[in-house]
Amino acid sequence: MKFFINEVDQIVNESIDGLLTNPRLAKLDSFPQVRVVVRKDWDKSKVAVISGGGSGHEPAHAGFVGKGMLTAAICGDIFASPSVDAVLSAILAVTGPAGCLLVIKNYTGDRLNFGLAAEQARALGYNVETLIVGDDIALGKEVHRRGLAGTLFVHKIAGQLAEEGGSLAEVSRVAHTVAGQIASIGLSLSEYRQLGQAFHSRLRDDQVELGLGIHGEPGIDIIPYDKADKLMEIVVKKLLESLAVPDSRYALLFNNMGGVSPVEMGLLVNSFRKSTFAAQVDYLIGPSPMMSSINMNGFSISVLQLSDELERLLLSYAEPSAWQLHRFKTPITVESPVLPPTIQYPASANATVRALIQGIASLLVSIETEINMLDAKVGDGDAGSTFALAGKLILSHLDQLPLNETDKLLTTIGRLMARQAGGSSGVLLSILFTAAGSAYAEEADLGKALSAGLQSVKHFGGAKVGDRTMIDALEPAFAALDTSLAQAALQAREGAESTRRILNTKFGRSSYLAENTLRDIPDPGAEVIARVFEYVAAQ
Amino acid sequence: MKFFINEVDQIVNESIDGLLTNPRLAKLDSFPQVRVVVRKDWDKSKVAVISGGGSGHEPAHAGFVGKGMLTAAICGDIFASPSVDAVLSAILAVTGPAGCLLVIKNYTGDRLNFGLAAEQARALGYNVETLIVGDDIALGKEVHRRGLAGTLFVHKIAGQLAEEGGSLAEVSRVAHTVAGQIASIGLSLSEYRQLGQAFHSRLRDDQVELGLGIHGEPGIDIIPYDKADKLMEIVVKKLLESLAVPDSRYALLFNNMGGVSPVEMGLLVNSFRKSTFAAQVDYLIGPSPMMSSINMNGFSISVLQLSDELERLLLSYAEPSAWQLHRFKTPITVESPVLPPTIQYPASANATVRALIQGIASLLVSIETEINMLDAKVGDGDAGSTFALAGKLILSHLDQLPLNETDKLLTTIGRLMARQAGGSSGVLLSILFTAAGSAYAEEADLGKALSAGLQSVKHFGGAKVGDRTMIDALEPAFAALDTSLAQAALQAREGAESTRRILNTKFGRSSYLAENTLRDIPDPGAEVIARVFEYVAAQ
Repeated sequence: MKFFINEVDQIVNESIDGLLTNPRLAKLDSFPQVRVVVRKDWDKSKVAVISGGGSGHEPAHAGFVGKGMLTAAICGDIFASPSVDAVLSAILAVTGPAGCLLVIKNYTGDRLNFGLAAEQARALGYNVETLIVGDDIALGKEVHRRGLAGTLFVHKIAGQLAEEGGSLAEVSRVAHTVAGQIASIGLSLSEYRQLGQAFHSRLRDDQVELGLGIHGEPGIDIIPYDKADKLMEIVVKKLLESLAVPDSRYALLFNNMGGVSPVEMGLLVNSFRKSTFAAQVDYLIGPSPMMSSINMNGFSISVLQLSDELERLLLSYAEPSAWQLHRFKTPITVESPVLPPTIQYPASANATVRALIQGIASLLVSIETEINMLDAKVGDGDAGSTFALAGKLILSHLDQLPLNETDKLLTTIGRLMARQAGGSSGVLLSILFTAAGSAYAEEADLGKALSAGLQSVKHFGGAKVGDRTMIDALEPAFAALDTSLAQAALQAREGAESTRRILNTKFGRSSYLAENTLRDIPDPGAEVIARVFEYVAAQ
Repeated sequence: MKFFINEVDQIVNESIDGLLTNPRLAKLDSFPQVRVVVRKDWDKSKVAVISGGGSGHEPAHAGFVGKGMLTAAICGDIFASPSVDAVLSAILAVTGPAGCLLVIKNYTGDRLNFGLAAEQARALGYNVETLIVGDDIALGKEVHRRGLAGTLFVHKIAGQLAEEGGSLAEVSRVAHTVAGQIASIGLSLSEYRQLGQAFHSRLRDDQVELGLGIHGEPGIDIIPYDKADKLMEIVVKKLLESLAVPDSRYALLFNNMGGVSPVEMGLLVNSFRKSTFAAQVDYLIGPSPMMSSINMNGFSISVLQLSDELERLLLSYAEPSAWQLHRFKTPITVESPVLPPTIQYPASANATVRALIQGIASLLVSIETEINMLDAKVGDGDAGSTFALAGKLILSHLDQLPLNETDKLLTTIGRLMARQAGGSSGVLLSILFTAAGSAYAEEADLGKALSAGLQSVKHFGGAKVGDRTMIDALEPAFAALDTSLAQAALQAREGAESTRRILNTKFGRSSYLAENTLRDIPDPGAEVIARVFEYVAAQ
């Protein structure tokens, strides 16, 4: 297992320094002995909201420092509680007369170290309130619940009330209220991979873990791997069983544990949306990594039971970009535009044009085998069939074409060509005729219009003269159209012949072929164009 | 390889529906035949900015639909261009008289399908400009560059100018300017894992790929795996070689290809910060997944050469939460608070207190072996040593203690206990004395103060009476202190004896032991407390 890493014992320091390229944050100058990230704009006039814990949970906790959320975060080693001195440093650094709230996730190490730091700060005369958060519902109600991603609801809501100038008593009260109204549960397909170590999963390919912690500890249950919707049903059922007020309104925090791809996270949100519980959810935070477990291939969902007060504080602006909230609703559709039919214009008659088009189309059908054989020498042998298919499409729609209106005729041929499924040739022919039709509508000059179509082919197709494509015949022929048809045919032939000598091109499949394979063989597309112009000139 | 998935052919649809739980977005009602995500608040009075391409690059492109960025996104299958009809539907759905800009990443499929849709829309009378973006610098300047994450700079800046009411000519001009001033390059440790398939890397453990596309195609170079800083040096060097104006100011877009853990992404930003180029970077977007390649374990960096105009448009608000910009600076430090020394107060004399403390400390040292032997029966055999270490610490600091000021003495003993490294006991004793010191400072009542300390121990430690800890002796003894010392000693002994009968506890390591192991053995901590109180009562 490879990781982006320098030295194993520097991961946390270096990752924090990466975060600190954001100049609204700062670190205490005792870093990295003491790892404390603080708001640079903090003035101690308001209640400080402080949290932290082991690292490996990025962006928690330092990524949630900022206006409207945390005032400071203390970062331990990977999955290890920070020292008492580090926590005390954070308290002393940001706590003024208004006091501070210390938000502690319910793990023994954090409780003891944060707890002692709180007592030490109190002994120094600081006004410190503490809150121990245990939102994990995996183990039931009887045991000490672990602190999981739901803790971020506390940071957001307490942080906002502090920002608004709430007193320590008020901030502490609302924080305790939030802590009593959150629930979290996680599920993972595989455990985190340890940085710098080989990976051996304790799970089989047909197993997943339910009710995870965030430190690689086993989940409370190993259950069979199943479709995402089924797994989500199990997670939601477990969550619902834990809710004190199951018929309330909720906010949902959708946490990537670090290793789930973005496309899967979107899919998981949709799985949740299909659950019966989704109708009670008004807001979604995420989906994104918020309280990760390094690179664990799993997710957790946390819910907050809403009240008017909590909803208001939840919805207010928070500076940390890791906090992303939006309303949560069933997907909305808007009316799709009606696309024009292939045959968009009424048919009109023009015997000369009809004869010419019929002749060209018949020619394309008649040379199918010959051109396929030519293409077999330098390509996949289907160029003749592609043009023949175009010819057949035109023949079968001859009576429906607006033969007497050149612009509409060109556009309609373009639409017919778009119906060819075979690779890029059909699209390129369609671009040619569609763009030519638009150009002709602006100025009734067929040579100019076709040249404009060709420009579009070159722009979107990427080939130019000399790249051994039909452009080598098309471009000189179109340019000669205002001289005479005979001249255009001569130019098309000359262009097609020139492709026999193009042995080295950076464009398309010809670029993969050896020079000896290409020598003296004309490009099949260019050859077809020359034949078409020769036919037209002979009429 | 396990994935969160239902049916392989529904991944894209379901992931988009997950995104669409955000009610500011909507899909055309031809979904999922045609997958177009649009701004719900769009009124066609402004220039529409439309982009899209294959899926598997989430949050691109649908995740960037919103005020200030894209008006609509067209989503193909995984790594496959959307159909011409889908692109045309998007154009027709959101384009009004102001016209639209179609931003196309430079891949043949996208160029042809978006190009034809543009021509078709033009033929229908719509005002459509197109831009083909190729920001990939891996292959040099001579070839057709692929469109990578740098394309998002175009979406942001063109989207903002459109939002401000810029004309199609203006929006198109600025978009072309941006496309000419961006460069991107990626590096990955391993390729993406295909959804629903077994994974076999084409890379060895000592290899990484440089110059990636975003569709799983091999990088331009395979280079040796190395430390993150070294790999970043190579990436930055390659990027610098490509820059037209190497001494300009730049914005940096730091893209997670989908499988890099958050802690590593922070570390990579720091690796970049150490590069010589970092001093020229004023803004950072990310680090986060923006143009992912499902779950590829790699990253890409994209830069935009800034001008005053581009900077202003770049910095403006954009609604899509996947777009996160902040200023980029060297990490800032702020002064760390000075922590109080262990011995914080001047020493003071009190012969009686000195004798008592010396006696208790000596007792703790003298019973070390006995208590260790007791602990060996129910624990790891070091409880005696823990208390003995506490005793030795007090004895060695006896001359420095504020013996005549009870609050400061308690606080100082608390600080001494904090210096014990051995597990949680030291922290708990420290919490006890520190909290007791603070309480005594408020009300000079030793019994109440110690009880307050005990409350703190219970709060942060999590144990209560009956959990087979020293609390079983401490709580009744403290409660009896205002009766008499003799009574306190009796209560402590009774509490310690009661632990012999506690065979079933949910707390701490005793919870892992069989009842027969615990029967008739007192908790070693509670036994020590009883001994201490018996000693004090006997003085």
